[in-house]
Amino acid sequence: MRIAILGFGSVGRGIARAILQKDLGITVTGLADSKSGLIDPDGIDIEAALARKQETGALGDPAVRPIDVVRDAEYDVLVEVTPTDAVTGEPALTHIRTAIELGRHIVTSNKGPIAVAYADLAAAAEKRGVCLKYEATVCGAIPLIHGIGEGLAGNSVSRLYGIFNGTCNFILTRMSEEGLTYEQALLEARELGYAEADPTYDVKGIDAAIKLVILANTVFQRQSTLQDVDITGIDQLTPEALRLAEEQECTIRLIGEIAPAENILRVSPRILQKSHPLVVEGTLNAVTVETDMAGEITLIGKGAGSIETASAVIGDLIFIRDRYVKGT
Amino acid sequence: MRIAILGFGSVGRGIARAILQKDLGITVTGLADSKSGLIDPDGIDIEAALARKQETGALGDPAVRPIDVVRDAEYDVLVEVTPTDAVTGEPALTHIRTAIELGRHIVTSNKGPIAVAYADLAAAAEKRGVCLKYEATVCGAIPLIHGIGEGLAGNSVSRLYGIFNGTCNFILTRMSEEGLTYEQALLEARELGYAEADPTYDVKGIDAAIKLVILANTVFQRQSTLQDVDITGIDQLTPEALRLAEEQECTIRLIGEIAPAENILRVSPRILQKSHPLVVEGTLNAVTVETDMAGEITLIGKGAGSIETASAVIGDLIFIRDRYVKGT
Repeated sequence: MRIAILGFGSVGRGIARAILQKDLGITVTGLADSKSGLIDPDGIDIEAALARKQETGALGDPAVRPIDVVRDAEYDVLVEVTPTDAVTGEPALTHIRTAIELGRHIVTSNKGPIAVAYADLAAAAEKRGVCLKYEATVCGAIPLIHGIGEGLAGNSVSRLYGIFNGTCNFILTRMSEEGLTYEQALLEARELGYAEADPTYDVKGIDAAIKLVILANTVFQRQSTLQDVDITGIDQLTPEALRLAEEQECTIRLIGEIAPAENILRVSPRILQKSHPLVVEGTLNAVTVETDMAGEITLIGKGAGSIETASAVIGDLIFIRDRYVKGT
Repeated sequence: MRIAILGFGSVGRGIARAILQKDLGITVTGLADSKSGLIDPDGIDIEAALARKQETGALGDPAVRPIDVVRDAEYDVLVEVTPTDAVTGEPALTHIRTAIELGRHIVTSNKGPIAVAYADLAAAAEKRGVCLKYEATVCGAIPLIHGIGEGLAGNSVSRLYGIFNGTCNFILTRMSEEGLTYEQALLEARELGYAEADPTYDVKGIDAAIKLVILANTVFQRQSTLQDVDITGIDQLTPEALRLAEEQECTIRLIGEIAPAENILRVSPRILQKSHPLVVEGTLNAVTVETDMAGEITLIGKGAGSIETASAVIGDLIFIRDRYVKGT
C-alpha cells in the first residue's frame, strides 16, 4: 500500500518512524510539510528525509507544495497530519477534498476538517467509494472510534461522556492531590510541557468541545458546530470546591458529554465519585460509551503525544490496508 | 448473511433477539440446543422458536441434533454458544472443526475450544480461508480482542493484565467497602446471583486463568494450557489484609497477568493503588493492554451477562459480514 504524508511535525515523523521500524507493507510515495516536499513513486527514503528535516529544517524540495503531493504523487491513502485550524479546517480541508475527488482513501489526525466539514467529506468519500478515517482526532492513542465502529458494532450508542483534555485533567489532579490553587497547578503544567504558553484553548474547555463536535457529527450524525456546545472551563475553580468534593469521597473533573436524546452537548467541571471509572489521574483521557447491549464501556489511555497519535493513524492505515487495498 | 446458532441458552436467545430487533442483514438458517434443532434455508421463524423454547423447553425437532445443523444447514457463519467444557472443549470443538472443514466462518463465546485448541483451529481456518472469531470468550461486552486486533493494530503488545472475573471482584469490593469477611461477601454474591452454588471455579481463580490461557494463545501465539498458569484464588483473603491495604490508599484485586518476555502467566490477589485505572467496583471487568506505541490502554465494562455476551458475538458477526460476506 502506498501512502502520501502531509505534515512532518512530531506526529508525521512518528508515523514515518513506525513505518521504518515495523513491517506494515506500507510505502511512502509522497511527503510534504509547509516548507518543502518530495514525490517518488518507487518509495521515498524516509530515513534520509528524517535526517534532512533535522539538519536543515527542510525535508525535500522547496518547490514541491503539499497540494502538489496530493495531485501528483501515486498513492492509495492520504495521511493528513498538518496542524489543526478549528475555524476553517484549512489547508487540510482542501488537501482532503482534493484527494477524495482523486479517489484516494483518507486518514487524518487533523481535528479541523472533521469538526467543520465531516458530513460533506463523508458524503464525498461515500460517492467515490473511498474510506475516511479519523481515529487520531479524538483521545490520542485510545481506540475510541474503532471501539464504537467495530468492537461495539451492532450496538446503539445513546451517550458518550468523558475526559477529553489531558491538560485540564493534570491541573485538576494536582489541585485535588496537593491542594494547589488553579494558578499554581497551571504553572506546574506549563513547566512540565503539558500546557501551552497561552492555555486558553485547553482550560476554557474549547479543545474538549471540538472533540465533542467531532463525536457528535460522526458517531451521532449531527450537524453540530462549536457554537452548539455549552462550555464551562476549569479556570474559575477554587481549591475550596475541590476540598468540598473530597469530603464526600468525590472529586472534580472536566467532563464532555453528548446525549442527543436529551439534547445534551456540553463541557463542564463535574463532581464524580472517586471510585468512578472516569476518575483518572494526570494527563490521561477516559471515555465512557453508553450502549443498549454492551452496557457502559470505558476506555482509558493517553490522549496526546506524537507516538500515541501516530499509533491511532497506523491503526486506521491497517484497517484500510486489510479491508480495501490488500492484494491489489 | 446466513448463520447457524448452536446453543439456545441465555446467550443464544440474546443473539436471536438482537437479530430480530436490529436490521443487521442476518438470517438464521440453522438452530439447535442439546434437546432439539431446526433447519430452514429460507430462514427460521426466530420468534416462534423463542416461544416454543419457553413453552415446551424444545425449540424444534428432537431428531435434529447440533451436528446435523452443522452438516446440513446452509449458512455462512457458525455461531457456537453452547456451554463451556474447559477440559475437552467438547462438543463445541467438534462442531467448530466440522464447520471449518465445510468452509464456514466461526463466531464463538465458548471458552473450551479456544482454550484447548486455538492453534489447531486457527491453522485449519487459515487453510480453508475462513474467519475464526472469539471476542465473547473473554471479558463479556468489553471489545478487548477487537481493540487489540484492530484499534491497536500495528502496536506490539508486551503485557496484558486485569480483572477477568466479576464474581471475585464483587466479593473483594464488598470486603473492602463494608469490612465483610470472605464468607459474608460470598454469601451476598450468591444471594444476588453473582456466584454459583459451587463457587470454586470463580474464587479459586480458575475462570480467570482460562481467560488468560485464551489471551496467551491468541494474542501472544503461545501454546499454553491451564497447567501453565500460576494460580492463587481469593478464598484465603482476610479482612485484615484488605484493611492494611486501605490504610495505604490501596486495595486488593484478583489480577490475571501475561507478560511472555518475563515468563509471567499468573492469577493472584494483588495490592493496587485505589487510583489505579484497574480498580473497578462490583462485577465489572477491566483490562490494561501495554503496547509500544499507544502506551497503556485500559478497557472497563461488564464481563458477563447474556445480552453483554450477545453484544460481543454480534460485533464479530458484523466484522465477518463487512469483511468477508458483504455483497455475496
